[in-house]
Amino acid sequence: MKIYDSQIAPNPRRVRIFLAEKGIKVPYEPVDLMKKENLTPKFLAINPLGRVPVLELDDGTHIAESVAICRYFEETQPKPPLMGTDAKDKAIVEMWQRRMELEVFTNVGGAFRHSFPPFADRVKQIPAWAEQCREAAVKNLEWLDTVLADRPFIAGQSYTIADITAFCAIDFAKMIKIQIDAAKQKNLARWYQAVSSRPSAKA
Amino acid sequence: MKIYDSQIAPNPRRVRIFLAEKGIKVPYEPVDLMKKENLTPKFLAINPLGRVPVLELDDGTHIAESVAICRYFEETQPKPPLMGTDAKDKAIVEMWQRRMELEVFTNVGGAFRHSFPPFADRVKQIPAWAEQCREAAVKNLEWLDTVLADRPFIAGQSYTIADITAFCAIDFAKMIKIQIDAAKQKNLARWYQAVSSRPSAKA
Repeated sequence: MKIYDSQIAPNPRRVRIFLAEKGIKVPYEPVDLMKKENLTPKFLAINPLGRVPVLELDDGTHIAESVAICRYFEETQPKPPLMGTDAKDKAIVEMWQRRMELEVFTNVGGAFRHSFPPFADRVKQIPAWAEQCREAAVKNLEWLDTVLADRPFIAGQSYTIADITAFCAIDFAKMIKIQIDAAKQKNLARWYQAVSSRPSAKA
Repeated sequence: MKIYDSQIAPNPRRVRIFLAEKGIKVPYEPVDLMKKENLTPKFLAINPLGRVPVLELDDGTHIAESVAICRYFEETQPKPPLMGTDAKDKAIVEMWQRRMELEVFTNVGGAFRHSFPPFADRVKQIPAWAEQCREAAVKNLEWLDTVLADRPFIAGQSYTIADITAFCAIDFAKMIKIQIDAAKQKNLARWYQAVSSRPSAKA
């Protein structure tokens, strides 16, 4: 078993943090995104979408998509639970994971891909779209601050994959100068301090 | 228990089909999106993002996000499995569900929101972004045709939530005149015929 990884992209970090929280060690094989190793025929045979991370199982099966990889390890090693406990809790965690992904991560990613100069040869950049994504990301951080007013973590009382997704998105957002407004967003700043202090944050 | 629903939006349909496949009946409460009932203070208290579907449990808990609602019912009634069976299978289904969502559904949705005239008062439409989404959706249908060359369903031998997501996206894409090219995309056309013939497709 191994995981095709990159230290510079936010999605592989989601998996590394998830595994660190579980105490699971898997060998990582670096894929050099700057050299476009992810777009070689060899890698496209592993993931036709040309993206990392990808989990390679011992039987040769390739599992792409960060959350799908996390799901594999949640099922094989349920403790500590990071994707919920019973039916209701699993659904609540999934709701928040998706909200963090679709409302925060996706907008940060859209703003990045459509404005970061080195990406101009990978995507036809649309500045108006970058700006719309940026505005949405900033607004959604304000919303997230209100969400965190009555709870320590995004999905409730426990640290979950929703926190990992939000944390990786918010850290990555620094690349495009979107940051938590600590003076105004006190709940979000308190949450960020807590999740970034966990040993897994270094993964 | 009830589900806040809309017959005109593609996401609520994902849940209705999922429940029809499970044989689960839940009362639906219509939310009139054209009248913007989803943006009233009453509905925003149910889902602050102003979207349907939302599952209301008997204890008053609200679960938003289609896939999170599906997860709830997959956990409470595992048969027939629509989100995988063992760890590896669950991860594979999740990978394909996400690919269908992120590569097909999201692009169809982006093209729709940024080009459909009645949506001009809901989103600042960016024609170049609509076009980029449209091109990606069309290209990803070509890819999906190749995926389906060696299997009856998107995630493998069984009908799963990945098929539901792709089916709802492809049906919705007709609104913006993106359609399967049945002459060229024979695998995709065969799959569409199969999934659209299931009784659940009427849900």
